[in-house]
Amino acid sequence: MAPGVPSEKKKKKIEEQSSEERAIRVPNPHLEKIKEDILYHFALGTATHDFPALFGDVKFVCVGGSPSRMKAFISFIAEELGIGSPGNDHPNICAGTDRYAMYKAGPVLSVSHGMGIPSIAIMLHELIKLLYHSKCSNVIIVRIGTSGGIGLEPGSVVVTKQSVDATFKPQFEQVILGKSVFRSTHLDEKLAEELMECGKELDQFNTVVGNTMCTLDFYEGQARLDGAFCSYSEEEKLQYLKSAYEAGVRNIEMESSVFAAMCNLSGLRGAVVCVTLLNRLEGDQITTPHEVLKEYQTRPQKLVGHLIKKHLGKQ
Amino acid sequence: MAPGVPSEKKKKKIEEQSSEERAIRVPNPHLEKIKEDILYHFALGTATHDFPALFGDVKFVCVGGSPSRMKAFISFIAEELGIGSPGNDHPNICAGTDRYAMYKAGPVLSVSHGMGIPSIAIMLHELIKLLYHSKCSNVIIVRIGTSGGIGLEPGSVVVTKQSVDATFKPQFEQVILGKSVFRSTHLDEKLAEELMECGKELDQFNTVVGNTMCTLDFYEGQARLDGAFCSYSEEEKLQYLKSAYEAGVRNIEMESSVFAAMCNLSGLRGAVVCVTLLNRLEGDQITTPHEVLKEYQTRPQKLVGHLIKKHLGKQ
Repeated sequence: MAPGVPSEKKKKKIEEQSSEERAIRVPNPHLEKIKEDILYHFALGTATHDFPALFGDVKFVCVGGSPSRMKAFISFIAEELGIGSPGNDHPNICAGTDRYAMYKAGPVLSVSHGMGIPSIAIMLHELIKLLYHSKCSNVIIVRIGTSGGIGLEPGSVVVTKQSVDATFKPQFEQVILGKSVFRSTHLDEKLAEELMECGKELDQFNTVVGNTMCTLDFYEGQARLDGAFCSYSEEEKLQYLKSAYEAGVRNIEMESSVFAAMCNLSGLRGAVVCVTLLNRLEGDQITTPHEVLKEYQTRPQKLVGHLIKKHLGKQ
Repeated sequence: MAPGVPSEKKKKKIEEQSSEERAIRVPNPHLEKIKEDILYHFALGTATHDFPALFGDVKFVCVGGSPSRMKAFISFIAEELGIGSPGNDHPNICAGTDRYAMYKAGPVLSVSHGMGIPSIAIMLHELIKLLYHSKCSNVIIVRIGTSGGIGLEPGSVVVTKQSVDATFKPQFEQVILGKSVFRSTHLDEKLAEELMECGKELDQFNTVVGNTMCTLDFYEGQARLDGAFCSYSEEEKLQYLKSAYEAGVRNIEMESSVFAAMCNLSGLRGAVVCVTLLNRLEGDQITTPHEVLKEYQTRPQKLVGHLIKKHLGKQ
C-alpha cells in the first residue's frame, strides 16, 4: 500500500471521528521536543503569539494564490456573515513577512499561498502546525483558485473530485531523503457534494465536478504553445489535452495534488474549487478583459461563502 | 545525450557568440504566429507596452523570492550606480498584478519570483520573452536568494557551481506532455569565478563556491524535523545531509535547478548567489534575530552590486 493511503481500519476511525471532534493530526514525533515553534514563513511563533487565543475558534480556512484576492475574500465573507462593520479593514496577521498574507474574520481564516506545489506546501506545513498549536477541531479547508479549463465554457467553476498528475494518476510524489513516496490525492467526497449543492442553490454560474490535473509548470507542463520554449506541435498538444479530458480532467492548475495529500495526512476535510479562465482546447493565452476575469475570480468565493453560511446556519 | 545539453558544436557557437552580440534565444517556433503576446503574470503585453523602449537597455537582471527584497535591491543598486536621486521611489512595473513585482534602474532589472521551481519558472518564461521582444543582448542574470547551509557558518554566501537534485545529480526534470525530460543545470563558470573575485575584493563576509541542492519542498524535501509531518529519525536526517556535503553540496534552496536549465536554453549567462541563514547540521528552525537575518540578506545584493559596477566600469 502506498504511504499516506489510510488502511480500512484507519478510514473507519476517521469516519467515526468526523461525527464527533475531529482534531488536527501532526504525524511528527519530533515536534514534541521543540520548545518554541517558529512558523518562519508566517513570521509567527508559539513563544511570541498565543495561538489558542488568536486562532482557537477557526472552523474554515480558505486558501488561494494571490494575496490581494485573499484580502478581498475576507472582506466579502465578513460582510456575508455580518461580522464587523462594512468597509472595516482586516489587518494582515503575517505583516512581518511578505511570503504569505493571512486574514481572519470570526471563524474564517484566509491565507495566500503563492503559485505552485512547493509554495503551497510550505504554507500548509505551517498552517497545519498553527491549527494544531491552536487546538482547533472540525476544520474545513478550501482552496479557491484559478485554472485552465478543458472543454468548458470560460468562467465555469470546477469542484475537484480527484487531483491527478501529468499522467492522470491520483497521486502526489513527495521526495523524502532523496527517495520518492507516493501519496493519495483523494478529496473529501461529502464536501465536494455539498459544494455542488451550493452551486445549484446559487444558480449564478456553471458549476461542475471533475478531476483536476496538477502540474509543476504553467507552460511546457500544461502543453502551452506560448512559453519561451516549445518542442511539440499543436496537434500533439491537443492530443494530450484530449487524453486528459477522456481521463475525466476538467481543469488544470498547480497546487491541488499536494493540498489533497496534506489534507489526508493531517485529517483536514479539504476541497478544491477553481474557476476556469479559458478553454485550453481553444487557446493558451488569457485574452479575456481584466474586468471579466475579475468577476470570474469572485465565483469560487461566492460558492464557498454560501457553504460557510450554510454550515453556520446563516442560510 | 539528454535534451537541453548543448552539443560540442553548439557549445562552440555559444562561446563564439559571447565575445560578440549574445542574443536571447526563444526556441519556440509557435511564438512567431502570435500577434499580441500577453505576459499574463506580469500584466504586460506587446500590444499595450513598447518593450524595446521600456526594456531595450537592460543588461543585468536580478531575481529573488521576496518582492520587498527586490524593491530594496533596486534602491540599493540605483544609489550604487548614481542613477536618480537617493530616496526616489522606483515604481512597480507589474503594478497590474500581485503575482510578481518588477523594478528598473538604468540597465538593471529587479524581479521577484516567489518560492519554488514552478513559481520561478512561470516568471522566467515571461522574463525571457520580455527580453526577446525588447531585443536585449548580452544579458547577465543572477538569482540572489536565501538558503540553508551545510557545514558553513550562518551568513556565508554560496556562489553555485552546479545545481543538483535531491539525489545530487546536476539535472532538472521537466515534464512535457506527461513525459520526463532531463535538462542540464550547469551554470556559467566564468561568471561564478567573477563573483568569487568580487567576494575577495569586498572582503566583508565568507564567500564560497559549491554545489547547491534544489528541492521541491522545504520540510520533508530538505530533511527537516520540524514540519507538520516527519517519518525519519534525526540520525537519518544527518546521514542524508552529510551525503549531500560529500557530493559537494554547500547549501539547499528551491529554485536554482530550473533557473540554470532555463538560462542554458535561452542563452542567458546565469549565476546563483545565496546567503545561508543557518547551518542545517546544527538545526532546522531559523532562530537568528530578525535584524541579523536582514543584514545577511543584503550580502548577495552587495556581491552582485559589486559585479555590476565592475562590468559598467564604475569600480
